[in-house]
Amino acid sequence: MSTPHFDRIALIGIGLIGSSIARDVRELSLAGEVVISSRSAETLRRAEELELGNRYTASAAEAVRDADLVIVSVPVGASEEVAKQIAGNLKPGAIVTDVGSTKASVIAQMAPHMPENVHFIPGHPLAGTEKSGPDAGFTGLFRDRWCIFTPLPGTDQAALDKLKAFWMALGSLIDEMDAQHHDKVLAIVSHLPHIIAYNIVGTADDLETVTESEVIKYSASGFRDFTRLAASDPTMWRDVCLHNKDAILEMLARFSEDLAYLQRAIRWGEGDKLFELFTRTRAIRRSIVQAGQDVDAPDFGRHALDQKK
Amino acid sequence: MSTPHFDRIALIGIGLIGSSIARDVRELSLAGEVVISSRSAETLRRAEELELGNRYTASAAEAVRDADLVIVSVPVGASEEVAKQIAGNLKPGAIVTDVGSTKASVIAQMAPHMPENVHFIPGHPLAGTEKSGPDAGFTGLFRDRWCIFTPLPGTDQAALDKLKAFWMALGSLIDEMDAQHHDKVLAIVSHLPHIIAYNIVGTADDLETVTESEVIKYSASGFRDFTRLAASDPTMWRDVCLHNKDAILEMLARFSEDLAYLQRAIRWGEGDKLFELFTRTRAIRRSIVQAGQDVDAPDFGRHALDQKK
Repeated sequence: MSTPHFDRIALIGIGLIGSSIARDVRELSLAGEVVISSRSAETLRRAEELELGNRYTASAAEAVRDADLVIVSVPVGASEEVAKQIAGNLKPGAIVTDVGSTKASVIAQMAPHMPENVHFIPGHPLAGTEKSGPDAGFTGLFRDRWCIFTPLPGTDQAALDKLKAFWMALGSLIDEMDAQHHDKVLAIVSHLPHIIAYNIVGTADDLETVTESEVIKYSASGFRDFTRLAASDPTMWRDVCLHNKDAILEMLARFSEDLAYLQRAIRWGEGDKLFELFTRTRAIRRSIVQAGQDVDAPDFGRHALDQKK
Repeated sequence: MSTPHFDRIALIGIGLIGSSIARDVRELSLAGEVVISSRSAETLRRAEELELGNRYTASAAEAVRDADLVIVSVPVGASEEVAKQIAGNLKPGAIVTDVGSTKASVIAQMAPHMPENVHFIPGHPLAGTEKSGPDAGFTGLFRDRWCIFTPLPGTDQAALDKLKAFWMALGSLIDEMDAQHHDKVLAIVSHLPHIIAYNIVGTADDLETVTESEVIKYSASGFRDFTRLAASDPTMWRDVCLHNKDAILEMLARFSEDLAYLQRAIRWGEGDKLFELFTRTRAIRRSIVQAGQDVDAPDFGRHALDQKK
């Protein structure tokens, strides 16, 4: 597939994800011009200092004018507001996509505002780190990471193919599913883990019998593995929780039920039940490493990194 | 403090921890002779192949004969059995220590069997990886990691100092507290995180609407951070759960209570409550990185490791 090229790309939102896209587009020369918009004046100024695009504007409506590709990278709760702002200025034939972690909600917020003559194709690159803001982005963030599309019925195949080619140029692996299934899958692989991580860090923070300095001092014995996720962007994650409510509540109910079973086994000293679960989970880790979805180095390779210092 | 030296060290148990101690002792020449014991014939044979010691025996009683330092590195549930086996053969004046993750239980299991004329000093090096067995150990595992002692009242100071010097030679940072406090601290920084990790991996494994291959494929979006802990040694963790029951059940109750609060906030769309928690937890991550207890590289530096490949 040939490398795609767009005359003008508009990036609405320029945080970790938007700024990583901008860096890749610049490095790979995927656009004639990149127009960047942010509702935060400080973020916009920083994007300009980093030379992430060619033009900068506080107005999303202004940014999308004459753009062939519009990528909305904002907290999912802001999707409808952005859709309303840009709807009237979209170029006929433009592709409008997003990067949100929930898809049914984004579709419900944006699709009703999209003109008939543009291609609205929801997407979700499964990539990121616990850092946020335009300085947190980097070239290659999407390399070997999945990008899931949840196209609406009747989506133009040529537009979809062109959008896929764009993400493939960024190194992504491409997948496609319906929005409801996406939201269930993400609820278990991403949303529940983040919520659990936030929760356990909160629980530790509230203890009276163990001090916070003890928690920090001894965190290497397990706790710290949760703190990375619990350092993720609060606005983004508040919105994810509010906008994938049903799937998240379903997964939370299952998790709590399983935890009650485990708790009961501990209380009654049922070692066999504990051993059975603790053995079963080991196999999943092995599969994830085999699938190339994590590094095989023990302890996430922290020792290797330590030694590099 | 001068480097300590023991004429004979006996290592009872030669898994990840025992074999890492053996490697350090060999490299640093901390003993005239190292005698290794394991109840598994296969493990013992492997320890010999790896040349981790000078002599190898299936009998713990035989191993401790004439040893100045005895280090018990077995699943905590096996502590009493080991104590009974070695009690009659301990050399007067010997130091007997362990590495177990629960301390009150180990003391209750071992102390009653220890002869008056040996120094029984419970210890716990907070170090390890998700791998297990004699091949998983490595030199430097304990470097810059905490080792907590929970000495009993009336412990001989000279013996305690000598044991501390031994762990300091291995690179450990030394701490001291009572066994009950240790067990509470570890319940939150280590035991609860492992239990939660095992639980969420189990929940994901049981879903009907999302396939296991989907969970694996998309695990990089959060889930995989839990799988490392959930790949830890099942026997060790079964024993930890059974032998630190009270503290673990207390932490589990708090965790579940906090999770119910969070769940309710999601159900009723209370974004402010979510945002407040998600902001508070960020600070803890920052403190952990500042305290040198984790690498600062985003995503645990997985990208850096990828690029090394």
